[in-house]
Amino acid sequence: DNSALAAQLDQRINNKTKPLGSLGMLETLAKQIGLIQQTTDISLKQAVILVFAADHGIVAEGISAYPQDVTWQMVANFLAKGAAINVFAQQNHCDLQIIDAGVNHNFGSRDGLIDRKLAHGTRNFAQLPAMTPETCHRALASGMALVAELQGNVIGFGEMGIGNTTAAAALMHKLTGIPVAQCVGAGTGLSSDGVLHKQRVIEAAVALHSTAIEPLDILATFGGLEIAMMVGAMLQAAERRMVLLIDGFIVTSALLVAARISPAILDYCVFSHCSNEHGHREMLQHLHARPLLQLSLRLGEGTGCALALPLLHASVNFLNQMATFESAQVSEKS
Amino acid sequence: DNSALAAQLDQRINNKTKPLGSLGMLETLAKQIGLIQQTTDISLKQAVILVFAADHGIVAEGISAYPQDVTWQMVANFLAKGAAINVFAQQNHCDLQIIDAGVNHNFGSRDGLIDRKLAHGTRNFAQLPAMTPETCHRALASGMALVAELQGNVIGFGEMGIGNTTAAAALMHKLTGIPVAQCVGAGTGLSSDGVLHKQRVIEAAVALHSTAIEPLDILATFGGLEIAMMVGAMLQAAERRMVLLIDGFIVTSALLVAARISPAILDYCVFSHCSNEHGHREMLQHLHARPLLQLSLRLGEGTGCALALPLLHASVNFLNQMATFESAQVSEKS
Repeated sequence: DNSALAAQLDQRINNKTKPLGSLGMLETLAKQIGLIQQTTDISLKQAVILVFAADHGIVAEGISAYPQDVTWQMVANFLAKGAAINVFAQQNHCDLQIIDAGVNHNFGSRDGLIDRKLAHGTRNFAQLPAMTPETCHRALASGMALVAELQGNVIGFGEMGIGNTTAAAALMHKLTGIPVAQCVGAGTGLSSDGVLHKQRVIEAAVALHSTAIEPLDILATFGGLEIAMMVGAMLQAAERRMVLLIDGFIVTSALLVAARISPAILDYCVFSHCSNEHGHREMLQHLHARPLLQLSLRLGEGTGCALALPLLHASVNFLNQMATFESAQVSEKS
Repeated sequence: DNSALAAQLDQRINNKTKPLGSLGMLETLAKQIGLIQQTTDISLKQAVILVFAADHGIVAEGISAYPQDVTWQMVANFLAKGAAINVFAQQNHCDLQIIDAGVNHNFGSRDGLIDRKLAHGTRNFAQLPAMTPETCHRALASGMALVAELQGNVIGFGEMGIGNTTAAAALMHKLTGIPVAQCVGAGTGLSSDGVLHKQRVIEAAVALHSTAIEPLDILATFGGLEIAMMVGAMLQAAERRMVLLIDGFIVTSALLVAARISPAILDYCVFSHCSNEHGHREMLQHLHARPLLQLSLRLGEGTGCALALPLLHASVNFLNQMATFESAQVSEKS
């Protein structure tokens, strides 16, 4: 019974030597982890961040500040441990998995790269649905299979894919009804003219694909291979009662899809940060999510997850390690 | 020349493999640390949090939700490693120093307690100035001496003292001119009636001590021994070009005093979090400070400092460890 467990967690939290509620969001988080793990004896084991990479046909419309080659170049950078996510994951003792979901590049056999390539990028959704339904289903299944093999109980999600803020903005619009203008942002660094062009591209594509209504149709039509694989991974992670650590704009767009398929997934999600990518704040509001960090990040890769991880540990550690008023013989409120 | 160093830091930050500015506040922080340390080769060494504890005569007016004994009981809890600050400091590899600045209790010789007791608490500032000018000066000197002996280059500040949100609110009012009603909060958990009573107590004391105008007079009149010792410690830490990690409402009230004595101290300060104690947000605004964390904490002890420490490490680590566009052969913006 969850209400009994919730009461036990509240009691355990409130008996710690601190004013009632004074650990704020860390208390909320400790309780959430207890409810996810169905115990007051919470723990975090073998945290891992899965970074899904893929390319996007929509880049043909000139919607990104960087050339498509940056996707594979950054994947190579991940493998060489030179990217921000490598630095933050190592600092915070988090494993990393780098997954090629559909990068437009032949890596050959690369140490540390998990090859789940389904195509050399998606199709240009300004003309055709990004994926066929079959490809989309294969991506979902592939993401599920990856998570089925994990040993730990906390998973972060990251991504790399030039053009994927355009896909994510289209998904956001279709799944929330928020006007496209409020969904688009500068991505890796568009000018305001560039953002306006991106908006027009999405609006035209939305008009073209007006029959995409169901969440999986929307995902196949506007999504990316990395996004679809993440949706599968998220669904499987919640099924396994893992703590899901959500990163920025693109990862949250995947969650919008997953939450439409399985609304209960939100109980398992910890929102690591609010990104500076325009639209993320409203996306979080739509999900009634309160992010842990607000550092004006807009880098992706799962960096927000890696940076938030010490706060998850802090919430678990205070619950497990702090003294109680009784054990420390501290007087209670007068 | 700081402008040359600032440009070098900007260049080093901008050459990293990430969109321009995409690490947000971590970039600002890396640059600030570079300017503090006067180098692009930044590092954090032997982080330590100093927790100053003292009692407050003003508790006689019934302004706290907890009895005064909780001050010494929590000091004992710190020494037994059962408090929140112990848990978070240990998690994030931060040393702790627990300093008796003026607790109303005879600890005898206690392992790990740094005895700098100047009195068994302050006088009740509803009747008399909390400290004599001499006691206040001794507290400042004591704080300076403690910091003069430190080996590291990053210092966090924490405190424990039943009644000290009342002292801090009075300091805030006197040093910022913000009305008392906007400076008082619930502290460890007052009812709204309790908060109103606290406001009236402060307003009456402010009227009584209307001749206290200079910052050190204000500190001696309304402050606490732990607050005065912190002011000295802060001034010395900035003098030594350390990174100063500022905690919540009470620590920031000490900084208000220090910044009036030496405005340049603010260049050395990293604001770890915005507390839920009413008044802290306005205090930070007054200092034009942007806090790293907003977790609705209101615990004190230096807990915000300990929780923010991984973000400081992240800012140093990305600057030192990330690849550049050139080294990783990643294409730049098109």
